[in-house]
Amino acid sequence: MGKVIGIGFLGLGVVGSQVISYINENREYVKEVYGMEFSVKAVYVRDINKKRNIDTSDVFLTTNIADIVENPEIQVCVECMGGAGMEETYKAVMKSIQNGKHIVMSSKKCLATYGMKLMEASNQYNIQLRFEASVGGCIPICRSLMQMSKGDEIRKIYGIVNATSTYVLSAMENHKISFSEALQQAKAKGFAENNSSEDIMGIDTLNKMRILLRLGMKVDVDCRYIEPVSIENIDIEATNQAGTIIRQIFYAEKTSAEDICCFVGPKALNSNHMLQSVSENYNMIFVESKHSGLRAYYGKGAGGRETASVMFDDLIDVLQNKYRFEDIEPIICNCLTSENLVL
Amino acid sequence: MGKVIGIGFLGLGVVGSQVISYINENREYVKEVYGMEFSVKAVYVRDINKKRNIDTSDVFLTTNIADIVENPEIQVCVECMGGAGMEETYKAVMKSIQNGKHIVMSSKKCLATYGMKLMEASNQYNIQLRFEASVGGCIPICRSLMQMSKGDEIRKIYGIVNATSTYVLSAMENHKISFSEALQQAKAKGFAENNSSEDIMGIDTLNKMRILLRLGMKVDVDCRYIEPVSIENIDIEATNQAGTIIRQIFYAEKTSAEDICCFVGPKALNSNHMLQSVSENYNMIFVESKHSGLRAYYGKGAGGRETASVMFDDLIDVLQNKYRFEDIEPIICNCLTSENLVL
Repeated sequence: MGKVIGIGFLGLGVVGSQVISYINENREYVKEVYGMEFSVKAVYVRDINKKRNIDTSDVFLTTNIADIVENPEIQVCVECMGGAGMEETYKAVMKSIQNGKHIVMSSKKCLATYGMKLMEASNQYNIQLRFEASVGGCIPICRSLMQMSKGDEIRKIYGIVNATSTYVLSAMENHKISFSEALQQAKAKGFAENNSSEDIMGIDTLNKMRILLRLGMKVDVDCRYIEPVSIENIDIEATNQAGTIIRQIFYAEKTSAEDICCFVGPKALNSNHMLQSVSENYNMIFVESKHSGLRAYYGKGAGGRETASVMFDDLIDVLQNKYRFEDIEPIICNCLTSENLVL
Repeated sequence: MGKVIGIGFLGLGVVGSQVISYINENREYVKEVYGMEFSVKAVYVRDINKKRNIDTSDVFLTTNIADIVENPEIQVCVECMGGAGMEETYKAVMKSIQNGKHIVMSSKKCLATYGMKLMEASNQYNIQLRFEASVGGCIPICRSLMQMSKGDEIRKIYGIVNATSTYVLSAMENHKISFSEALQQAKAKGFAENNSSEDIMGIDTLNKMRILLRLGMKVDVDCRYIEPVSIENIDIEATNQAGTIIRQIFYAEKTSAEDICCFVGPKALNSNHMLQSVSENYNMIFVESKHSGLRAYYGKGAGGRETASVMFDDLIDVLQNKYRFEDIEPIICNCLTSENLVL
C-alpha cells in the first residue's frame, strides 16, 4: 500500500469528471510506479443535485468550499471551475495555496487575470502550481517554457491557440459562407460555446498569450494597452491572397531588452508556413530563442478526455518535481498590426 | 553565495566547450534563480595539448578518467564524448552513477546500446540521468515522454531525426543531382560528417528511435531484427510521385498489447503532411496517444550552441526534479515496409 495523497476538486463539469475517471482507471499504475495512492476526499460543486456523467455515490460532494480549501486531509487541489465565477475560483485557489496545498489549475481566464498573485503566493508558501491545460490543451508548452531555454533568451512566441476562430475562418474559406453561418456551424459541431464572443474578439487568445509570456519571457503584459482584432468583420476574399489562409494568431516579439511588440487577431499565413496545417481543434505554438533556435509544438487544444489527461500529468508532476517561478516584470507592449508583422 | 555544485566533464569537443561557456555566461542567473553555483572541477580529455576553442587556463584538464568518476567533489557529470569510444563512455558513465553522480549525457550511440543498463543503475543508485540532447537536439522530446501521457497509452511515435539524410534527399530532389554529389555537398556545408555511413544507412535514426521507444512505449526493441533501409540506392524519380517528397523517417506503432511494428528508411511524404516542412538541420517528431491524441514537436536537431543549451537545461533539471525510469520490456518488433506504412 502506497502513501495516500488526498485530492480535492473545485468543480465537477466535463473536465473534472474525466480527471476523476482517470484517477480511478490508474490506481494500480500510480501505486506501482510512484508508490502513491490518490484518494479523492471532497468535491466542491455549485449544484449538488445536478446529473453527472460519472458515478458519484462514493464521492463526498459539497457546496461548502471550505470542505476543500480548509480540509487538512487534502494535499492537492484540482481546479476545474470553468469560465464562470472567476473571482470565486481565484479566492478558492489562493486560500488553498495559503493552506499549503499544491494546485493543478485549468481556468485560463482566472490565471490570466490573477496568475501573478497566484504564482507569487505559490513561491511564498513553497507549494507547486501547475496549469498546463490552460493554454494549448495537450501541448506541453507551459512545462517546456518552465524547463527549457534556461539562461537562453526567448525572443518570439506566436501561434494558434483558439479552436473556435480556427473553425470559423476555415469554414468561411472552404465553403464560401458568411461569418455568422460559419459561427452557427461551429456551435452545432461543438467547436464553439454558446457565448463565444471572447473567442471571436481574440480575448481568449490574448489571455493565453499573457500566461505564456510570463513563463517564457518573464514579463506580465498589461492587457489594457493591447487591442485584439476581432475576426467578426473580416473580408476573407479581400484579405486572402492566392495560397494564403487566414487564422487568428497571437504574436509576441522581444525587440530590445525592455521592449515587447505584440499582435492578436487574424493574419494571412503563407502556404509554406507550418501554421497552415493547423485545423479543427488543434493548436500550434512557436518559440524562438537566441541559442536554441526555433521550436514548435502541436497538439489538441481542447476536449474533456484530452484536458483530463494533461491535468493528470500535472497531478503527478506537482508531487515529483520542484519549480519556482522566476521574477516577472510588468510591461506595456507596443502593438503591431497584421500588415507589419512577418512570421 | 549559493550552494556550490561540482561539475565534471567527460570530453571537451565542440559541445563540451560550449557547455562550459554556457555555465560561465550564466553564473549570476544560476545564483539568483536557483541559489546555486556551478563549479567545473575537472575535465577529461583524450589529448591534453589539443588546441581548444575556449580558454582552459583555469580548468583542470586530465587524461585520467578517475579524476572525474572517482572525484568526491563532483556531483554532476556532463558527458560529451561524441561517437568514438562507446565502451569507454559507457564505463565512465556507469562508474559515475555508481559513485552517486547525476548524469547529463549526449552520446546517442552509447545510450542506444547501453541505455538500459544505465537507466537501471540510475534507479538503483537513486541518481538522475538525463539525455535530452541525444535525440532531436533542441526538441524537448525526452522530457515530454518522461513527463506526459502518464496512464495514457502511446500508440505511435514517428518522425525525422537525422539531418544528413534530410540534406542529401532534398538536394537530390531540388537540384536533380546524384546521391554522391548530394553527399559531397552535405559534407562541404557541414550537414554530414566525414564518415556518414550510419546516417545514410538509417542506423543513427534506428538508435534514436530505440531511445524514444524506451521512454514512450516502455519497450526496448531488439535492433538485430530491424533492417533499416538505406537512402543510398534510392531512385528519387521513380519513387517520387507528384507532390510527394522523400525523407528518411522512423515509424513505430503499437499494434496490440504485445506487438510493435516499425520502419526506418526513406518514405514518400504527401504534400499535406507536416513532415514536408522539415528541412536543413531541423527534426520533427510525432507522438500519438490514446487519450491525449496527436502531438508534434519541431526544432533544431544539431549544432554546438543548440546542443549546449539543451544540456544546460538538463543540468538544472537533474538538480531540481526527480524521475525514476519505469519498467521497460525487451521486445522484438515486426518490420514494416515503406509501402504498407501510412502516415
